[in-house]
Parts: sequence; structure tokens; C-alpha cells
Amino acid sequence: MRATYLYGAGDVRVIDVPEPTIKQPADALVRVVRACVCGSDLHPYHSMPASDAGTSMGHEFIGVVEEVGAEVTTLRAGDFVIAPFAISCGRCEFCRAGLQTSCALGGFWNDAGLGTGGGQAEAVRVPFADGTLVAVPGVDAGTDDARLASLLTLSDVYGTGWHAAVRGGVTEGSTVTVIGDGAVGLLAVLSAARLGAERIVLMGRHQVRTDLGREFGATEVVPQRGPEGIAQVRELTGGGSPIVLEAVGHRPAYDQAVGIVRPGGVISRVGVPQYEEAPIGFGSLFLPNITLTGGPAPVRAYIEQLLPAVLDGTLNPGRVFDRTVALDDVPKAYAAMDDRTALKVAVRP
Amino acid sequence: MRATYLYGAGDVRVIDVPEPTIKQPADALVRVVRACVCGSDLHPYHSMPASDAGTSMGHEFIGVVEEVGAEVTTLRAGDFVIAPFAISCGRCEFCRAGLQTSCALGGFWNDAGLGTGGGQAEAVRVPFADGTLVAVPGVDAGTDDARLASLLTLSDVYGTGWHAAVRGGVTEGSTVTVIGDGAVGLLAVLSAARLGAERIVLMGRHQVRTDLGREFGATEVVPQRGPEGIAQVRELTGGGSPIVLEAVGHRPAYDQAVGIVRPGGVISRVGVPQYEEAPIGFGSLFLPNITLTGGPAPVRAYIEQLLPAVLDGTLNPGRVFDRTVALDDVPKAYAAMDDRTALKVAVRP
Repeated sequence: MRATYLYGAGDVRVIDVPEPTIKQPADALVRVVRACVCGSDLHPYHSMPASDAGTSMGHEFIGVVEEVGAEVTTLRAGDFVIAPFAISCGRCEFCRAGLQTSCALGGFWNDAGLGTGGGQAEAVRVPFADGTLVAVPGVDAGTDDARLASLLTLSDVYGTGWHAAVRGGVTEGSTVTVIGDGAVGLLAVLSAARLGAERIVLMGRHQVRTDLGREFGATEVVPQRGPEGIAQVRELTGGGSPIVLEAVGHRPAYDQAVGIVRPGGVISRVGVPQYEEAPIGFGSLFLPNITLTGGPAPVRAYIEQLLPAVLDGTLNPGRVFDRTVALDDVPKAYAAMDDRTALKVAVRP
Repeated sequence: MRATYLYGAGDVRVIDVPEPTIKQPADALVRVVRACVCGSDLHPYHSMPASDAGTSMGHEFIGVVEEVGAEVTTLRAGDFVIAPFAISCGRCEFCRAGLQTSCALGGFWNDAGLGTGGGQAEAVRVPFADGTLVAVPGVDAGTDDARLASLLTLSDVYGTGWHAAVRGGVTEGSTVTVIGDGAVGLLAVLSAARLGAERIVLMGRHQVRTDLGREFGATEVVPQRGPEGIAQVRELTGGGSPIVLEAVGHRPAYDQAVGIVRPGGVISRVGVPQYEEAPIGFGSLFLPNITLTGGPAPVRAYIEQLLPAVLDGTLNPGRVFDRTVALDDVPKAYAAMDDRTALKVAVRP
């Protein structure tokens, strides 16, 4: 089959690899209906050292179960499924607590230990299929593109935006600032609105994106960055935003979050940090009693809750997709997202 | 009157200064009954550059109101009061929200802007007296030493330990690890126990202190530090502590907190950070969805709640005091706390 591999910064290739097979009794084999490229895929796309072996790519996909191992009880061939970006056993303490990204046995796609391939491929072997996958009755590979796109967001970006808002403590009447107008930032806006936020300031400078952000619920848009953007948000919010959702992951976005958060407030991060050390001392987080929270979203814990409004068409988070490519064109998808001519690209194998 | 000034690292002097007077109509003048030396006073005691002017010291005291300004409505001469370590107007958004340490108009003792002196003195001018001070009926300067010591902890260390536990989310049945066996660490233990924690691991290596910690509610004591201490706590807690209360402020204590916290858990800091940057990236806080919270305790918000059990003798947080000195002996108090021959020293002016 064809599958996507990254061989170093900027070097994405779609290559022939062996078809995956069931290896463990808890495995399922899923034929991919849609996959996509994530903002976080751009981090290794920018920085990965050259590698002869390469690494398989993609951690968001929806598809149809082709075969299940002997121990799989909740799925069978033909089921339409959403695959969260983390593999989870479904049984350990962390899975039971809804923190599947810390599963004691699980891991992530392209994981050497679990021997899994990535989702930007024709098919994927899914370990711990009962714990990992969520079946969606009434949907199949022939479902219309818009619905499939929205279902695909449940494998990562919608659940991630939701996690940002939930961890940020967004509730009825909240004032929230979202940093970043990528797919996750926009879906953090949607999530904050869904949780009842009254004011949602979106920091982003790509008007096509921020326009979608307004449709998703943003009440104000601040295109400025750095000190100017901070001053703008502090003025708009009368001294700082009680809740800041950081959906970028670069250090300047963190510094911006610290700059705009109100004393006693919360910074909830879901952008994968591209830094390790950052200011958290007396002058930044401590004196104003700021809470820093967030992390990779346990989207598996959120899918059942978010699914109904997607299925009945109340919400269309799939609008973050503005392009669809064939699998062999995935390198173009990376390039388009990298130069920001595309917001988020779906892949149709 | 006599007052304590710090002129540089290790250089504490008790000098003659003018008696404070009422300067603003919201001021009160308080004759100090007991003051004390704080663990956080040791930070400038270690590192302050030499200064000819010096800086007045002390931010914890209880005393008797001697005189009030024309606008003071809740206090009068003769009232016994607890002074929190932060000055707060009592009316702004942050005071009303119980975050008096972020008061829009207030500040801290020894504040150049507010023109306040420190509490390690015979008398103190208190700005925003209605918002700052808490009157305690039925107590006077002649109350027994043990009761006075417990009341004095409400000006900082007990409220600070309580803040750590509250921000850490301690509740019935919690497993908590407290880093630090100073007065704040021990009172974080007491607070966690009071909030219903079932297991309280205390990390500290001074047996006199950890013995008091056990009396306050610690169920286990880990004297080891660094990797050895981390391994010990991870083993005791079966993979990490869901709640970590950090009551030291030095960088190794933060690193220890990161090392022992369980995925999905909380690090609540109340030790004043002696570092600005520290690891918060993918491998430290992000991947395991750790929440970092805490800051200077708004003790003013907690005093009324904590007072009854102190007044009726149910709790004796004042047991953290193991020495009392006269005001002129304050330099000895700093030295004794610095070389750890004293846990916490009360000052009787």
C-alpha cells in the first residue's frame, strides 16, 4: 500500500510499504477513508534531521474496520470508526480517568514500541482497538464530504480545542482569549462558545481564518502580536483575559499568553510546546497566581460527548478543512499548510 | 522606635527610626504584639546586594490598634488585629474575588510606593486598614503565648500552607506530597489533613520538623532529595503523587515536584520562586497534562475561615514556632533560621 514518510525537514514522500496485518488479538485493521495533515506535523517538517529510515506520518484518521483480532469485542468488520491521535488500552487507571494520552500501555501513531504506522496511509493497524477506536453507527465511506470532514476533526483538532477550553475552565459568561488561528485555535473558539463564553478574543492575523473564527463565535479579533498584541488584549479586556487558550506551541505564543492573562487567571496550552524552559517565576506566573494547564487532549474521552452535534449538523467543525488531496499529493499538502495557503488539508487515500 | 533593617546579605540590624504616624484617612497605626521571621526573609538575607539605605523587614505581625484614620470604619483603638502579609484595599475586583495579593491599590510591607515599614518593629502604619486587617475579638496582648503564636501564623504561614492545599485541589481522600519541612510545608500538611487528605507524604530531612509534620497529619516522611527522593515518592504512591505542594521556592524543589507528580496531577507552589525560567515543555508538564498553580497566598481571604479552630484550640499551627526573641535580638533569629537551629522564630517587641 501507499503510506507517507518524512525523511527530514521538508522531505515528505509517499512510498510503497507492506499492507499492515493483525499482530495482536486486541488489534483492528482499518482502511482509511480520510486522513489529514496536522499543524503539529509541521514541527518535524521544519526541524527533523535527515534520516535514511524515515518516519511514518499521520495521527488523525477515520475509516472502516476491515478485520479485528480475536479479543476485540466492541468492533467488527464494516464498522465506521474515528481514531483518536493517541492509542489507549481503555482499562488502565488513566484511561478510566479520561486521560487516555497517559495510558499505561498505549502510545501514539508511528510508535516504535507499538509497531504502529501513521494515518496518512491507505490502512492502519490499530492496537487496543476496543480502547482506542470509537464506532459511529449510520456513517459509511460514502457519507458526504462535509460530514466526513467534521467527523475527522474528532480525531484531534476539535477534541484538542475542546480540551483547551475545558482545562481553561470556560463556562457560562466567561471572557476568553484564544492565541492562534490554526485549526485548533479556531476549534478552541468553537468550543469556548459552546461552553457559554460571552467574550472570545481571537488572536490571529490571517483574515480568512479569523473570519471563520468569527463564525465559530469569536467576538473580537486582534491581529497584532508581541507587545502590541498584548497591549491590545489588555485594553480590550480591561486588564487581562481571565482565560487564555494557547493553540500554537511556539515560545512567543507562550510569552503572549503570560502577557495577556489576568491575575488569578488560567493559561491552558494545547499547542505542542517547541520549547522546554520558559518563565514561570515570581514576575510571570507566581505573583499574579496564574494557573498553567493543558497538554495533549485525551480526545477519546470527548468523542461521545461531541459527536451528536456533529452528526445532526448543529456544528460543522470540519469547516477548518479548506482543501482535499489524494494520498500521493500529501507532500503538496504539507507545503500548502507550511506556506499558509491552506488552513488544514484532508487526505483521501 | 526600634525596627529591623537589612543592609545586605547577612547584615541585619535593629535601628532607631521615627515612630510611624497616620498619613492617610484609611490608615491605622498598630502596636506590634508579636512579629516573626519568615523563610522568605532568608532569600534577601542570602542574596541582597549591600545597600546604605537598607530595607525594613518583616511582613507578619499581630498587634493592637493604637489609632485609626478618619475613614476607617471597622476598627478602633484597642482592637486586636492580624495583619496579612499583603496590604489590600478590600474593594477592588481582586479583593472581592479573594485574590488580595493582586489588589489594584495595595502592595506589600516595606513598599516604597505605599511608604510602609516592616513588621519586625515596635509599630507599623497600615494603609487600607479596613481592607487589610482582621480584628479578633476576645484576644489581647496578654493572651497566652501559644495562642498568640497560632494567631500569628494566620498572617502568613498557615494561610500560605492552606492556599497551597486549596489550589492543589486537596479534598476528602486525596493523596498529597508536600515538599519542604519549613513552617509553610508543615502547615501545608496540616491544611491537607484538615481538607481530608488520606495520605500525606512529607519530603523533609530534619527529624524534629518531620516529627511535627507527622503530628500535623503526615502519613509518611521521605528524607531523600533529588533522584533518590523522586524514586522513593514514585514508589510510595504507585507512580507519582496526584497533588504536590511545593513549599520551598528553590529550583531543585520545582524539579522534584515535576519528578514526583502523577500524570494529570497538580503542582501547587507557594514557596517564592528563586528562579525565573524552568522546564514546562513536552517532557515535563505538557505530555502528562500537569497543572502548575499557586502563588502568594491571599491570606486575608482565609483568616475568617481558619480562625475559629485556632481560637477554640482545635488546631495549634503556632507549634511551628520553636523560639521567641526580643526585638533587639532579631539578627540572632535570622542566623538561627538560616543555620536551621530554629524552625521559626517569633519576635516580642
